[in-house]
Amino acid sequence: MKITIAAAIGLLALSVTEAVKVNPLPAPVTIQWAKTGAVKVDNNFKIVGPNHDILNKAYARTASLIKSERWTPVTWERPAAEFPPFPVLGKRGDEEESDAAPAENANNGKHSLKTIQVHVSDLKADLQHGVDETYTLDITAAGQGTIKAKTVWGALHGLQTLNQIVISDGKSGLQIEQPVHIADGPKYAHRGVLYDTSRNFYNLKSLYRQIDALAYSKMNVFHWHITDNQSWPVEIKKYPQMTKDAYSPREVYTQKDIAAVIKYGRERGVRVMPELDMPGHSSSGWLQVDKKAVTCADSWWDNDGWTHHSAVQPNPGQLDIAYEGTYKLIKDVYRELTGVFTDNFFHVGFDELHTYCYNYSSYSQDWFKKHPGATYPDFAQYYIDKALPIFQDKPSRRLVMWEDVVLSPDFPAKSVPKDVIMQSWNLGVDNIKKLAHKGYDIIVSSADFLYLDCGHGGWVTNDPRYNVNSPPPLPKAIQDAFDANPSSYYPASNNYLGSGASWCDPYKTWQRIYAFDFTEGLTAEEAKHVIGAEVAMWSEQADSTNIDTKVWPRTRATELSARIQDFRERLVDRGILAAPLVPKYCLQHPHHCDLFRNQTAWGK
Amino acid sequence: MKITIAAAIGLLALSVTEAVKVNPLPAPVTIQWAKTGAVKVDNNFKIVGPNHDILNKAYARTASLIKSERWTPVTWERPAAEFPPFPVLGKRGDEEESDAAPAENANNGKHSLKTIQVHVSDLKADLQHGVDETYTLDITAAGQGTIKAKTVWGALHGLQTLNQIVISDGKSGLQIEQPVHIADGPKYAHRGVLYDTSRNFYNLKSLYRQIDALAYSKMNVFHWHITDNQSWPVEIKKYPQMTKDAYSPREVYTQKDIAAVIKYGRERGVRVMPELDMPGHSSSGWLQVDKKAVTCADSWWDNDGWTHHSAVQPNPGQLDIAYEGTYKLIKDVYRELTGVFTDNFFHVGFDELHTYCYNYSSYSQDWFKKHPGATYPDFAQYYIDKALPIFQDKPSRRLVMWEDVVLSPDFPAKSVPKDVIMQSWNLGVDNIKKLAHKGYDIIVSSADFLYLDCGHGGWVTNDPRYNVNSPPPLPKAIQDAFDANPSSYYPASNNYLGSGASWCDPYKTWQRIYAFDFTEGLTAEEAKHVIGAEVAMWSEQADSTNIDTKVWPRTRATELSARIQDFRERLVDRGILAAPLVPKYCLQHPHHCDLFRNQTAWGK
Repeated sequence: MKITIAAAIGLLALSVTEAVKVNPLPAPVTIQWAKTGAVKVDNNFKIVGPNHDILNKAYARTASLIKSERWTPVTWERPAAEFPPFPVLGKRGDEEESDAAPAENANNGKHSLKTIQVHVSDLKADLQHGVDETYTLDITAAGQGTIKAKTVWGALHGLQTLNQIVISDGKSGLQIEQPVHIADGPKYAHRGVLYDTSRNFYNLKSLYRQIDALAYSKMNVFHWHITDNQSWPVEIKKYPQMTKDAYSPREVYTQKDIAAVIKYGRERGVRVMPELDMPGHSSSGWLQVDKKAVTCADSWWDNDGWTHHSAVQPNPGQLDIAYEGTYKLIKDVYRELTGVFTDNFFHVGFDELHTYCYNYSSYSQDWFKKHPGATYPDFAQYYIDKALPIFQDKPSRRLVMWEDVVLSPDFPAKSVPKDVIMQSWNLGVDNIKKLAHKGYDIIVSSADFLYLDCGHGGWVTNDPRYNVNSPPPLPKAIQDAFDANPSSYYPASNNYLGSGASWCDPYKTWQRIYAFDFTEGLTAEEAKHVIGAEVAMWSEQADSTNIDTKVWPRTRATELSARIQDFRERLVDRGILAAPLVPKYCLQHPHHCDLFRNQTAWGK
Repeated sequence: MKITIAAAIGLLALSVTEAVKVNPLPAPVTIQWAKTGAVKVDNNFKIVGPNHDILNKAYARTASLIKSERWTPVTWERPAAEFPPFPVLGKRGDEEESDAAPAENANNGKHSLKTIQVHVSDLKADLQHGVDETYTLDITAAGQGTIKAKTVWGALHGLQTLNQIVISDGKSGLQIEQPVHIADGPKYAHRGVLYDTSRNFYNLKSLYRQIDALAYSKMNVFHWHITDNQSWPVEIKKYPQMTKDAYSPREVYTQKDIAAVIKYGRERGVRVMPELDMPGHSSSGWLQVDKKAVTCADSWWDNDGWTHHSAVQPNPGQLDIAYEGTYKLIKDVYRELTGVFTDNFFHVGFDELHTYCYNYSSYSQDWFKKHPGATYPDFAQYYIDKALPIFQDKPSRRLVMWEDVVLSPDFPAKSVPKDVIMQSWNLGVDNIKKLAHKGYDIIVSSADFLYLDCGHGGWVTNDPRYNVNSPPPLPKAIQDAFDANPSSYYPASNNYLGSGASWCDPYKTWQRIYAFDFTEGLTAEEAKHVIGAEVAMWSEQADSTNIDTKVWPRTRATELSARIQDFRERLVDRGILAAPLVPKYCLQHPHHCDLFRNQTAWGK
């Protein structure tokens, strides 16, 4: 996701030289435009290839979208306009390049492209982690179009790129601006978004829209954080009472719904990775089956007194890992869900386990009495030793857990198998390095860069910390310390340039997401352990109404602004309410909204 | 907008005593529920009253919405559940109150309400600032319903309240939970939202949705910041070339469109107050007519060198106030717009005027040569003396300007008539106090509380300040200063608990908006100068896709969470994509998401 400013300028120069407007997102590994003129695309062009259920649908969907969309780029890379030297006297400089539609120079239709031929060498490779997703896409001056891929899933990406490069010819037709050779494949095998459907519910329609947007941007994992403390929205046939803790009977995903979401994702190359968060973040649902399996649910969550601190947010509740019945319940629920979710990856949680919560459990108190000298890490290990054999249900299974299970300062387990994938969310590159050094594969979701909920303030209610009518007085000693130490730090208070009660403030902008160099400081060997990244859409303040605007387009942050800005316009055109990143002026006047005119000026 | 925690608790006690679920928003001045049982509302009930075009539509609209909505409160005020003392041993406490629909106890239909009678004593009072908006609403046990208002505009509010209190009877019918007497009227005459349609364009459909939401929440001003530097989206018949600087031909409000928006607002009691921002924030549009009327448009905006600093954001441009032709142009445009906008208030801008921009103007340089010893305040006064007579076009006209015209540190005018209303956006209560002390009427829009765009990061592109992979090292002297001075300040950096390149970070949550006590420190005489408040939806990162979620429901922040949370659910039900403020768990478990269980604990 990282590119230096110097490299950005390099790319800018490149694209200006090449003088095409389309700018596929994400940037293909290799893209070589010819200069022989536009290739006309026949209005009745067809995509043909292997007869395969998923591909057949994709051929039709892609051709139909290209024809209905007939895209005209809204913005593309160009240099900023020149300005006369300062000071000047009331005269406007040269007019900028016109924003007119792409010029028509399409070989007079001599060689119009009538067919895109898709070749796939292995039609059987399953959509699982690590499957080959590479493809090549060639459009020749003679009007031939070819997508070649090893697998169905690579071919789907090729079709997405095709969709992005076929644009309006400025009249009623279609064109590709120049013959082109593209060879592409992902840098990381795991590229996802975490959706949290427990804090607030997302209707099915909004989930399908998200999968569309993931596919458009060649992301391939829908991480479904399906349950948490606040509600239990998933049908479990063995324990139908669990959905008493759904927000309402309408706010439930039936197993049929889940299968439909998985199918929808699969048809678009998007895996659905389930997460059942345990043993923390667990109360709703579970306690409808067996109240003894959950402890501290019936406590106040926090803040009135630290001896009662049982959760980082309302509502409290953790699985009682000292109670034997808990494991039967986990086993039943896990087994049923593994029958629904088809992915080899299964995320089994383990974030933010709180020690104090177990003060509320007689089973846990008894466990510590029976194990004199035992620590909380021993207690965590007791859970791991009992639970992991349940989760590790088949050779192809790979488990994912939050990094807390090995990096929690007070409640880690002592020994976790190295084949468990760790999802990292704390302390940025420091924790990634620690996990890689220990030998774990890693999914990067560092909160400082990739948490999409950050920066919207605190959501807990009746919070008196907001009742501050003016900035508090700044003690002179603190002002003096800052004056004496010009640094990148400055004094902030909660409501004034400070966190505003959002623990991971500020908001993560597309530039921040993009700037994250998450393998910094890793050895080459360690870097191999990073299997990919996910942004996380924690949903205390998100549901079907605002999911689009919170996730898109910043999730697909990329180098240079024109690429992401034009992509945003397309998403909106396709019915996804992606938020605007800038005034539209900036799309129409490339680089005029850059912070610096001289982009090498900063930090020198 | 302010209520103390103690008062909040008082209200809570009150509503529990009264045992009704509906909680009209905003809270009526007086609301007295009886205890004699629900009043059944006939499924075919009618609203009747004076035969008046606007009221006739409102009778039909209100009755239709009540019948189709048949609202069941999603949340209502209740005390938090009790918890057993700590530590406890694995047992759940008392079950909470059921979330079932309101009980039916509707007098067996003996006295069902068949007619709401509306009385209006003055049908002619125009919708202008200060018009009487009071009303009473009475529902008796005998099934009589009456709304009394002095004006049409008060009656409209009464109908909104009626809409909020008629709910489902839990079966297929309607009810009002108890007979009730309501006497209500606004505390402030001016209650608005600023919409900026220049940075990004809002389609008409989204503007209508906003007016709906304003009316639902009894707000009465749609402040239309129609133009700015980035685009000119408004048709001017005398100068049709101005909309060459619209983002596209589709992104233009014709005068017919504007008249339709005004009519739509008027039918719902919402005034449309136009703003033509001048002489700062002016380039697009104007320079299509006369390039000499705009200076510094052809410069780089900022940051590469402060001698070139010509604007706070891209793109630069200010009206050249030393050029005589500017005034003719202003006059023509202003005259045409006053023929379209019917409100007596007209906002004529004057925020963020930059001195350096005039370095680019030969006219301005000449002006300073002709006026030796003149200062920028003299130059600003030159503009005021020439422009205000143009704007002050009729006795009923009241002009509104940004406070900068009197409070700018470097570019204020020297003398501005006291009948100009000042809109305050800087420094919270300090500037309000200053303006009131000077004798100006004030519209409060303090950025630290009421700017809805804040906290979403910096939007200017290619900003290298985001390229920080780990928190910068904290100098020991600074850490020591903080350790020695425990205060409400703490060290923050741009990307770590700091502003994230958002100048007015953090994000303004509903609790922050509500907590603002904007008359603090004013004398009774000064407080009379506060005529109301507006939240401001600056739109660098907002357009039709996300306007709903950015504005609603926090704009109508109010005391106690159940009131605003249920209102949010209604907005969503009515098609306005108001954002969720909390996990739905918090709606179903009142007060369980409060920061403190003991709400008097903080700050002691």
